[in-house]
Amino acid sequence: MKEFTDPEFIGGHLVIIGGAEDKYNERRILHKFVALAGGRDARILIVPVASDYPEFSADVYTQTFRNLGLQHVKVLRATSRQAVIDANADDLLADVTGVFISGGDQMRLVSILGGTEFARLLEDRVRHSPLVLAGSSAGAAGMSASMIVRGEAASHPNKNTVRLSPGLGILRSVIIDQHFTERGRLSRLITAVSYNPRLLGLGIDENTAVVISNDGTLEVHGHGTVTIVDGSCITYNDIAEVEDVQPFAVAGVQLHILRDGLRYDITHRTPIPVTEEFLLPDIE
Amino acid sequence: MKEFTDPEFIGGHLVIIGGAEDKYNERRILHKFVALAGGRDARILIVPVASDYPEFSADVYTQTFRNLGLQHVKVLRATSRQAVIDANADDLLADVTGVFISGGDQMRLVSILGGTEFARLLEDRVRHSPLVLAGSSAGAAGMSASMIVRGEAASHPNKNTVRLSPGLGILRSVIIDQHFTERGRLSRLITAVSYNPRLLGLGIDENTAVVISNDGTLEVHGHGTVTIVDGSCITYNDIAEVEDVQPFAVAGVQLHILRDGLRYDITHRTPIPVTEEFLLPDIE
Repeated sequence: MKEFTDPEFIGGHLVIIGGAEDKYNERRILHKFVALAGGRDARILIVPVASDYPEFSADVYTQTFRNLGLQHVKVLRATSRQAVIDANADDLLADVTGVFISGGDQMRLVSILGGTEFARLLEDRVRHSPLVLAGSSAGAAGMSASMIVRGEAASHPNKNTVRLSPGLGILRSVIIDQHFTERGRLSRLITAVSYNPRLLGLGIDENTAVVISNDGTLEVHGHGTVTIVDGSCITYNDIAEVEDVQPFAVAGVQLHILRDGLRYDITHRTPIPVTEEFLLPDIE
Repeated sequence: MKEFTDPEFIGGHLVIIGGAEDKYNERRILHKFVALAGGRDARILIVPVASDYPEFSADVYTQTFRNLGLQHVKVLRATSRQAVIDANADDLLADVTGVFISGGDQMRLVSILGGTEFARLLEDRVRHSPLVLAGSSAGAAGMSASMIVRGEAASHPNKNTVRLSPGLGILRSVIIDQHFTERGRLSRLITAVSYNPRLLGLGIDENTAVVISNDGTLEVHGHGTVTIVDGSCITYNDIAEVEDVQPFAVAGVQLHILRDGLRYDITHRTPIPVTEEFLLPDIE
C-alpha cells in the first residue's frame, strides 16, 4: 500500500470503465473486476443510484454477475439521498470485496451519495482495505475530486465549453472522462486539464477500463484506448486571461494513447516502457 | 531566407487557412494575406481548381479581393489537367505577388496541378522569391508533401481511419488538417503523425490561419485555434504492429493549442515564449 501522503493511496484496486462494457460475450473487463475482487468467492455490492432506472440497472448487473458465477451479489437499494442516509452502511459494506457503481448521471450520483456515511465508509474501505471499487461511465466520472458534468464535443477548446463539479474524491489528482473517442471528447479533457494542470486527464473509451493498483500504476484493459492528458509540462496557458467566448491557448500538453495491456506510472507521470516480452494479455 | 537545406525554405510567406475565412466583414486573414503580398499594389492569382464549381469560386474570390481594394486580380482558368498544361505558366506567374488556392477537394487539386509546369514554377517562385502563397481548406491541405484525404472524426485512433495521399510538397515536414475543431479531427491528425513522427501536424480551425515566414516561425491569425501535434518526442508507437481494426498506442505526443497572435518555431519545434508586452495584435 502506498503512503498516506499520496493522494491516490488505495488498499486494493480501482477499475474505471469508460461505459458500455461488454456484459454478454467476452466480458473481459467484468471478468477482470471479478478476478481482482476474489473470483468466484467475490462478494459484490452494486450501487445503481446514478441511473434514471436504478432498479433496472441493478437487475441487469445482478444477472450479469450471476452469469459470471457469483453467488454473493447485493444492491444498495436507494433512489434518494434520504434512502442512502437511512441505509445501514456498515451492514452493506461489511463483507463485500467489490463495489460496482453503474452509469447514469454523475451529478445525480454525487448529489445522492456525497457526504453520506455510506460514501465516507466506502472511501475508508477503498483506502484501508483490499476492496476493489469499480465504476462505469458516470460511476467512473464520479470517482475523481473534480468531475466533468457537461462539455461540448468537437467545439473549440474554450473556457466555457466544460463544466466541472465536485466528485466523490476517491481520486484526487486525476480527472476522468468516459465514452471518450466515441464522443470526440479530447478537446474538453484538454480544457479541463488546462483549468488546473495538476490534474491528470484520463479519457476512457467504451468497453475499455483502467485498473489502478496500489503501487500507483495504471493498466489498460479492453477494446478501445485510454488517452492520458498530462498538464504537468504546460509552459503557457492563458485560460484564465481570455474572455469566456474566446478560444484559449495552451502549450506543452503531453498526450499518450494506450491500448490493452499497456501501463502508465501515475506517481511519476510516465508511460511504463514495453518490455521485449510484451504480448497482448490473455483473456482472464 | 533560410538555407536551401531546410525542407521548409521559402522566399516569402505561406498563409495556410483552415477554411471558411471571413470574406465579408472583418476579413482579418484576407487582409493579412493582401498586406503580405504588397497591400493595394498586390497582384493576385486565384487558383480555383480544387472546387466543384471553379468558375463560381473564382468569381467569389475575385470580388472579395476587389472589395479589399485590389486592382490586379487574375484567375487560373482551368477545369482539367490538360487546361493547366496548356496554360502559360510563365505569363500567369510572371508578375504576381500572391497566389491564392481556394478550397474544394484536395485530391482534385493535386491530381490536376501535380507535376505540371505551373506547379513546378509556382514552387520555384515560392522558394526563391517573396511570392506569398495562400491556401484555404483543400488549398491548405494540398500544400504538404503528404496530405490527409479521408479520415473518420471522433472514432478510435486506429490504423485505418486515415488515408494519406501525396500533396504538392511545398511543406515537407508538416501535415495540415483543416476545419479542425469544427469537425473534431484531433484523433485523425494524431494518427497521421503516428504514421511518421517526423511530420509536424498542424490542425487549423475555420476562419483561422497560420502565417509561416522564411525565418521558420509560424504565427496564428484569426478567430479559432491552431493545434500543433509534435511527434518528435514519441517514445512508443505500435501503429505498424497492430491489426488494421485494432486501436494502436502512442506515447509521448506533444500538443500545443495556439490562438491569435501566438507563435511557434517550426525549425526547433517549440512554442515561442510570450513576452510581457504580448497583446492581441491590431487588425491590419
